[in-house]
Amino acid sequence: MNRRRIISCCFALSLLAMALTLGVVAHAQTPAAAAPAATAPAPPPTPADAELKDAAGKAPSPMDMQKGDPGGTITGTISDVPAADSKAGVTLPDVANQVGQNKIAANFIWTLVTGFLVMFMQAGFAMVESGLCRVKNANHTYMMNFFVYTCGLFAYWILGFAIQMGGAAGNGNLGGLATLSTEHTVSILGKTWGLFGGSGMFLVGHTYDVGVMVIFLFEMVFMDTALTIVTGACAERWKFLAFTVSSIVMGAITYPLYGNWAWGGGWLSQLGSNVGLGKGYCDFAGSGVVHAVGGVTALAVSMIIGPRIGKYNRDGSSNTILGHDISAVLIGCFILAFGWFGFNPGSTLGASAAGNLRIGTIAVDTMLAGCTGTIGAILYMWAFKGKPDASMSGNGLLAGLVAITAPSGFVSPTNSCIIGLIAGVLVCFSCAFVESVMKVDDPVGAISVHGTCGLWGVLSVGLLADGTSNYGGSWNGVTGNVTGLFYGDPSQLAAQLVGISTLIGVVFTLSLVINLGLDFFVGQRVSAETELAGLDIPEMGQLGYPEFVFRPEPEVAMA
Amino acid sequence: MNRRRIISCCFALSLLAMALTLGVVAHAQTPAAAAPAATAPAPPPTPADAELKDAAGKAPSPMDMQKGDPGGTITGTISDVPAADSKAGVTLPDVANQVGQNKIAANFIWTLVTGFLVMFMQAGFAMVESGLCRVKNANHTYMMNFFVYTCGLFAYWILGFAIQMGGAAGNGNLGGLATLSTEHTVSILGKTWGLFGGSGMFLVGHTYDVGVMVIFLFEMVFMDTALTIVTGACAERWKFLAFTVSSIVMGAITYPLYGNWAWGGGWLSQLGSNVGLGKGYCDFAGSGVVHAVGGVTALAVSMIIGPRIGKYNRDGSSNTILGHDISAVLIGCFILAFGWFGFNPGSTLGASAAGNLRIGTIAVDTMLAGCTGTIGAILYMWAFKGKPDASMSGNGLLAGLVAITAPSGFVSPTNSCIIGLIAGVLVCFSCAFVESVMKVDDPVGAISVHGTCGLWGVLSVGLLADGTSNYGGSWNGVTGNVTGLFYGDPSQLAAQLVGISTLIGVVFTLSLVINLGLDFFVGQRVSAETELAGLDIPEMGQLGYPEFVFRPEPEVAMA
Amino acid sequence: MNRRRIISCCFALSLLAMALTLGVVAHAQTPAAAAPAATAPAPPPTPADAELKDAAGKAPSPMDMQKGDPGGTITGTISDVPAADSKAGVTLPDVANQVGQNKIAANFIWTLVTGFLVMFMQAGFAMVESGLCRVKNANHTYMMNFFVYTCGLFAYWILGFAIQMGGAAGNGNLGGLATLSTEHTVSILGKTWGLFGGSGMFLVGHTYDVGVMVIFLFEMVFMDTALTIVTGACAERWKFLAFTVSSIVMGAITYPLYGNWAWGGGWLSQLGSNVGLGKGYCDFAGSGVVHAVGGVTALAVSMIIGPRIGKYNRDGSSNTILGHDISAVLIGCFILAFGWFGFNPGSTLGASAAGNLRIGTIAVDTMLAGCTGTIGAILYMWAFKGKPDASMSGNGLLAGLVAITAPSGFVSPTNSCIIGLIAGVLVCFSCAFVESVMKVDDPVGAISVHGTCGLWGVLSVGLLADGTSNYGGSWNGVTGNVTGLFYGDPSQLAAQLVGISTLIGVVFTLSLVINLGLDFFVGQRVSAETELAGLDIPEMGQLGYPEFVFRPEPEVAMA
Repeated sequence: MNRRRIISCCFALSLLAMALTLGVVAHAQTPAAAAPAATAPAPPPTPADAELKDAAGKAPSPMDMQKGDPGGTITGTISDVPAADSKAGVTLPDVANQVGQNKIAANFIWTLVTGFLVMFMQAGFAMVESGLCRVKNANHTYMMNFFVYTCGLFAYWILGFAIQMGGAAGNGNLGGLATLSTEHTVSILGKTWGLFGGSGMFLVGHTYDVGVMVIFLFEMVFMDTALTIVTGACAERWKFLAFTVSSIVMGAITYPLYGNWAWGGGWLSQLGSNVGLGKGYCDFAGSGVVHAVGGVTALAVSMIIGPRIGKYNRDGSSNTILGHDISAVLIGCFILAFGWFGFNPGSTLGASAAGNLRIGTIAVDTMLAGCTGTIGAILYMWAFKGKPDASMSGNGLLAGLVAITAPSGFVSPTNSCIIGLIAGVLVCFSCAFVESVMKVDDPVGAISVHGTCGLWGVLSVGLLADGTSNYGGSWNGVTGNVTGLFYGDPSQLAAQLVGISTLIGVVFTLSLVINLGLDFFVGQRVSAETELAGLDIPEMGQLGYPEFVFRPEPEVAMA
Repeated sequence: MNRRRIISCCFALSLLAMALTLGVVAHAQTPAAAAPAATAPAPPPTPADAELKDAAGKAPSPMDMQKGDPGGTITGTISDVPAADSKAGVTLPDVANQVGQNKIAANFIWTLVTGFLVMFMQAGFAMVESGLCRVKNANHTYMMNFFVYTCGLFAYWILGFAIQMGGAAGNGNLGGLATLSTEHTVSILGKTWGLFGGSGMFLVGHTYDVGVMVIFLFEMVFMDTALTIVTGACAERWKFLAFTVSSIVMGAITYPLYGNWAWGGGWLSQLGSNVGLGKGYCDFAGSGVVHAVGGVTALAVSMIIGPRIGKYNRDGSSNTILGHDISAVLIGCFILAFGWFGFNPGSTLGASAAGNLRIGTIAVDTMLAGCTGTIGAILYMWAFKGKPDASMSGNGLLAGLVAITAPSGFVSPTNSCIIGLIAGVLVCFSCAFVESVMKVDDPVGAISVHGTCGLWGVLSVGLLADGTSNYGGSWNGVTGNVTGLFYGDPSQLAAQLVGISTLIGVVFTLSLVINLGLDFFVGQRVSAETELAGLDIPEMGQLGYPEFVFRPEPEVAMA
Repeated sequence: MNRRRIISCCFALSLLAMALTLGVVAHAQTPAAAAPAATAPAPPPTPADAELKDAAGKAPSPMDMQKGDPGGTITGTISDVPAADSKAGVTLPDVANQVGQNKIAANFIWTLVTGFLVMFMQAGFAMVESGLCRVKNANHTYMMNFFVYTCGLFAYWILGFAIQMGGAAGNGNLGGLATLSTEHTVSILGKTWGLFGGSGMFLVGHTYDVGVMVIFLFEMVFMDTALTIVTGACAERWKFLAFTVSSIVMGAITYPLYGNWAWGGGWLSQLGSNVGLGKGYCDFAGSGVVHAVGGVTALAVSMIIGPRIGKYNRDGSSNTILGHDISAVLIGCFILAFGWFGFNPGSTLGASAAGNLRIGTIAVDTMLAGCTGTIGAILYMWAFKGKPDASMSGNGLLAGLVAITAPSGFVSPTNSCIIGLIAGVLVCFSCAFVESVMKVDDPVGAISVHGTCGLWGVLSVGLLADGTSNYGGSWNGVTGNVTGLFYGDPSQLAAQLVGISTLIGVVFTLSLVINLGLDFFVGQRVSAETELAGLDIPEMGQLGYPEFVFRPEPEVAMA
């Protein structure tokens, strides 16, 4: 019998394990103890070290510790500072080294934990986007959001990270990142401008480094966020293979390029130090780099793919196509809001030193802008459509969060409220504009939420940065605090406008060209048959909810 | 063509970006370098500083760092301690300043991350409450749980925070919070008693401060939790407009008032220092302040609104109304349990110094009480109803977590188990009592879970606090450890009873009066027609799951 | 009237509260102020202390702080270092004690937060497993995943933790854990080998200690993960009572035993120090201890229970039984991946000191292996089945994550990719093998994901550990870096093989015997009637989604 055989096998393996252990034990040699290194007689302790030795004598003894510490009052003293030379005890250099270790540890913890939160946003995007799609495409939409994480990460590991951050050495928060040392530059007007980085492909060689790993993880999840925005706008009709290739190219090239210019030491970040435009292009956590890049790419691809069958009537008017799961939409929004507390406050890349305690303000700014974004959208819908719409409420929250992403590091709570409120109303107008004027079909509103409000966020830095923060003295290499037009520095607004123009001009164009090529070679859109049947069975082989019964779809007009 | 026009626009914008950059570059002035400040010749280093300089010389050099550090062994040393004067190198004052910075950074990280976890509980509440409601009200219930976050936050930013924490200066964990300096008081029996705070409205002026931001974020998410409890008890019949106004008032006034008395330096916290009742009213993480306040408010509002149509028969007997989604209920419970590890351990407001390492015990206490709460409810249902009921299992978990919230900072793991077990059984009795004796309809059991078990949690501090913790020497300004009746201090129980009486008397009364007024002016309840049809279409304009097919509802008795 | 009575009661309680307060106030004695302790005149400060005093004088004053600190630049200085003697001000010993406190605080924060993330994985398991089951068993599967947390925790608190970690004293990251001091040993070949621990039952006595609490929480959530793996393989036919007892026994005995041998100072960890096999059995975060133990137990129990009715035809061929909710499967996978960033990087049990900054590498390794695992499974399915299957994509992600769990602390990013890719393909083969060759029915693929890939993970340490990490000098008490066969140390592979043989032999056998006994006394499987009807009503009393309409089930063949 099959089962009996398996059980017998396991008994045999059990005996084998014991035999193996005994056999190995019998034959193994205990390694010879290393000879103790000859040590010179220790010099007498310095006065400071003597004082520390005295303090160590007063610290809780091992016997004290063995009684347990229910109140947490005797744990965590000088006894926990490791001594380089255990005979000499803890010295002042030991204390100072541990201080540096504690600082880097705090910054690693902060950057990693907030990075994990951003990674989890992927689940939120999956829920929001799929919830806003029809049930016949649920599996396909969930799978795009699932697989984009893999595609992006793989592309970024191979190439994207090196392009974006490969020349960004110099973050003292994470131990220096000294190995990210290659930035390819061009010289214009007597100034050197960064174009793209080069170190860090595959994270091998000198970039196999703990600090580089932390920055890789954090930057990777940001890139991933940008990629997943596109899947929303193109949902319900994008061919899975085309989506895969398009995402890989975006993660390897398009996104990292703009990322380098803004964050990796590239030319946009040098607009301040090179030509005196404010503190250079300032995009604290990526309203532009992440959201607007995602949004304009979404626009480019969805223009190429075209609207869903039934979205537009012959007369050009549009039909509302309802999503299948409001609960997924709203829970997804909560997951995104939760993750945004990683997105923005984590973008300090640390908590200790260099003015990083401003993380408190950044978190509150994020919270408030999301709040007023929701208010803006709900009031708009309540006033003009008669009811507070769930989908637009969620988009209002996201709009506020997208908009505050760039300015969160530089503005006050009050200004955050203003930025969020404008975004909440703006997203309603933008959705209507994209649908009715541009005639671009965006099932989830991604172009408006991330594109339009992302650009508004970048702009708002140039207007409302209040000159209270600079994170350790200088930002983008320019001494002084980031300050917008309304607080006295019009040149900052100019830097932001250059960034916006570049983003729309270069990123949109690049995405358009790449995806037109892809359309030619692979084909971006599924067949009309597949689309009408729903993509789940033809593309993924399974329905999202195989046992549930659904209403027959309403008749759609064929434009 | 539309599309062609857009593409052309973008190409143009791309050119514009380049032109703009070049133009700007040509005209911008590189700002003149600041003249170096004249510096006096540096004094010779002290012996300690000389020792540090020597240590810095032995630390990994920039060249070492450029080889990468795969093992994490050369990152984080004295080299990472910033020197105030880079020429002199790192001095002892630099080290000491970095130690203070590391401490505050650790406490910021802890308080922010745990605050984020509490914020995420909102998703858990949304899932539990909506899952326990009927599918015809799914959108409405999700939306109440979504919008309550916004309403509460907005009200708290404007007024609530100032009332609650505006006079709470003095938390060394977060840098002092010196700007929260206004507590309005009254003098009775020769003692000064705090009534409500005043600093911090809109977080402007001196309260635009990083420490204040951290405490705002943390207190905000707690307030929000209290508000969302009410939406559960009033689900399936609460008018969206009334809910909005009621929540705003609660976030601005009712909740912050009791919060001030307990946590903001108000009179309940002064019962110890002023009149010798234990360490004053002790409610570590808010069984009373958050959960019982939410629960009694839920009781008040649901009494005003009345039971759902079909809940009670003409003879006064009640019918069970099933929720539509057990998966949402149980996943929601997991999200809540996850968030509770922010709720309780985060309430130290820090991890470094002042006995805050007790966060370990607090986390385990929380875990264990949730466990025994589940056991209590499951065994009760299994024994008396024949089957382990999913909804009551979830409520048992929450009951244990609610009950341990107040005592978690002061009791042992064993006592946590006892507190949780009692809560798990108590919640079953309380649900039956509220439904059958009080005749109050509470679709999700919020009154019992948060109200009844919240009060039990407050009481349990007065019984079972074991005198092992005081978080830095004194609690509520009274030197010594918090100790309950069974460990020798009956006066602590008296303080807890005063807190409970105040909570029921004042908070319930206030909520009742406010919501009766609201009922008069706005109307709390939807029409019977709306209720029977389900609130989703009439109130929110959409169904929760538009494409799914549902069974016809069972006939309900009209009481 | 009922309501009026309640309201009156509350008004009365309100008055009572005031009266009680006043009464208590009148009678309470203000405690006499403690007489100030007589203090000897302070000695003159040392030079270092004088330097610190000087620095404290230059730190921001209370008046500075009252102006607020929007930029976070004056918070966190020497002023925040607590002085033991407030008159003398901050001294060098105070600084050194705070450094130790900061270190332990950072490590507590890291270990607790990552532990919370692992706890949250329970929600992910619940979603993945239930999503892969039929809708008629949804409530039952969710409830097993819900209640296993409680059963496991309770068993672990009583006994399991003591068996596993009761002799594991000595982790400097968490303050020493000095109270976990009892390891029962046996002497073989002149060496002492640990068998099981003894301290820490109920967390009472000396183990009521903050450090012990932190390690308890972290180890508890790992144990819980192993337990929940079994519920997946046995879903849709396991009797709830049998599941309860089986889980309690596993949490109390089976899991902790192997846990002790690998992590608690037991004999597998001593293979290096005792008999020279590498650094002993190395299983960084538990591919073996957690996942393979869960997987082989799942195999044992599902062999006893037998396949679901309809899974196999009379000719031995098998039928595909689809899960009911792909959205739950994929969102569950994201939750698991999110939690895995706690699982692996958290297994350092700290961030500060002892080479723990390697958490950055561990996190990236985890991310990359999950990525290549997904790629492996998707490409396999796309190539051989024609479509990228959602369920197998999720399992591919999990397979990569399971496999990297053991080696994550010791391998490079590139090797992580290799390990993950192999796991992603392996899981596809293993699923086919278990289903078609072993004829074991595993509805979710748990045996292959956790068992097969877990063992591959353990093996991979012996092959690919690259000798770059040792976490503070020695691992398992053997000085030097963990190094696999391909990097020069074949004896490490031998240690891994001993671990694998023991795991399969002992854990499988033990689980089989225990669960056969349980089958005899309680009965593991529900009746065929119950199974065909779905377990929800007969076992749990309710459907998972009572209002939804489902398709009639396809006819199943009765084998």
